[in-house]
Amino acid sequence: MRNLKITLQYDGSNYVGWQRQASGTSIQGLLEEAFAPIAGTRVTVHGAGRTDAGVHALAQVASVAFAGTHDSAVLVRALNTVLPRDVRVLSIEDVPPDFHARFSAVGKIYEYRIVNAPVMSPFLVRYAWHVTYPVDVAAMKTAATHLAGAHDFAAFQGARAHVRSGLRTIHSIDWQNGHGRAAPLVCQIHGDGFLRHMVRNIVGTLVEIGVGRWRSDKIVEILASRDRSRAGPTAPAHGLFLVQVEYPPESTLLVGHP
Amino acid sequence: MRNLKITLQYDGSNYVGWQRQASGTSIQGLLEEAFAPIAGTRVTVHGAGRTDAGVHALAQVASVAFAGTHDSAVLVRALNTVLPRDVRVLSIEDVPPDFHARFSAVGKIYEYRIVNAPVMSPFLVRYAWHVTYPVDVAAMKTAATHLAGAHDFAAFQGARAHVRSGLRTIHSIDWQNGHGRAAPLVCQIHGDGFLRHMVRNIVGTLVEIGVGRWRSDKIVEILASRDRSRAGPTAPAHGLFLVQVEYPPESTLLVGHP
Repeated sequence: MRNLKITLQYDGSNYVGWQRQASGTSIQGLLEEAFAPIAGTRVTVHGAGRTDAGVHALAQVASVAFAGTHDSAVLVRALNTVLPRDVRVLSIEDVPPDFHARFSAVGKIYEYRIVNAPVMSPFLVRYAWHVTYPVDVAAMKTAATHLAGAHDFAAFQGARAHVRSGLRTIHSIDWQNGHGRAAPLVCQIHGDGFLRHMVRNIVGTLVEIGVGRWRSDKIVEILASRDRSRAGPTAPAHGLFLVQVEYPPESTLLVGHP
Repeated sequence: MRNLKITLQYDGSNYVGWQRQASGTSIQGLLEEAFAPIAGTRVTVHGAGRTDAGVHALAQVASVAFAGTHDSAVLVRALNTVLPRDVRVLSIEDVPPDFHARFSAVGKIYEYRIVNAPVMSPFLVRYAWHVTYPVDVAAMKTAATHLAGAHDFAAFQGARAHVRSGLRTIHSIDWQNGHGRAAPLVCQIHGDGFLRHMVRNIVGTLVEIGVGRWRSDKIVEILASRDRSRAGPTAPAHGLFLVQVEYPPESTLLVGHP
């Protein structure tokens, strides 16, 4: 049995998110349905991260056990022929048997986009949060620096999430003005892992600081409280992009490899 | 009666084009319907260029006679409240009575975007032409240089178009690799005016050269022929953006102004 690493890109606007749900179309479901006739059997595809409804991915990673002998380039084309145009397989690679898209991941990069202007671009309606009140980017940058490092991020965890530990490490977090005409403001955040809604809750909190509701150092207090009710609102899903999933060098995945 | 210059942006995907049609929703129709309750009467809005179905605009310009006393910023907000999210009024200015969005225009800039890669970006499906066969950008650049200047562009005119003269001046035309991840290939073309389908027919012809069907200098022969059947196919509408409409300095518009 081969183990395949699939890198895919999607516009999340029309889907219920990565994960299969009782109703609605999920990316995982689409991918599994596209694989089934090729594999000649039902397959289960494991994703690196469960992007929510409306969240986009520039490079989501999934893994799947596959018995076929198809060349990976042929597989990419076959899947893209079946998948809707807003979901694209970018590449497929054979990986060692112990590679798992979710459990092997050691880091992720997300970007959150905001259009901070009176009039929203018609081209970014589904790809950025429209914040009309002018934000103080310097204050949001300062506040963001307090989040870098290893912390218990329970204050930024989705209310219904249940995980044993809120301890995560943010390697870097910063705001940048985008390039080009539309020029959204982009928050890039790189960490070893993220709690449910963590990026959106962080962005929602930083925007409260940006619009002047709170001072920059309020974030220190919120973080220390580990209390979700102290943080800002959850920023809307459609501004969020999963940009990259990181894995250790391939050799280290091979358990028992000389 | 005031004369207003309206600058607007739209995603043309869901519309039959700028101009009102017997059936389907047009940008002109949407704008006129949005104005009517504010003006208290039906109004006619004149656009600088009749973008086709699926063509986008970053800065289309329209003019309208308006009797109201509303502040222009208030008008912008009122119109955007009524218009769908894929059509946005960017600004409104009072202009001299003889300003006409179409007849006063002295130049236009269009951009045509191509994604030249095996897999199409899900985010550019509606905003770029997917050309899978690798194109020779240098050959397309060379061919494009032959189009700059004053020529009779009848060979690149839409088959059903009927205008007295095909004489137009292209001030500049060039291809550039886009910035950022998706990085579409962009053809920017700046001229004093364009025949129907002219930009799309030029791009369709340049792509024939890019994929190696024709040599670069074939374009000289096509241009000289003034025969539409000699040029390449019409590139799809959804890759085209009206980027800018140029007008003379305001004072020269004021007929009889001291």
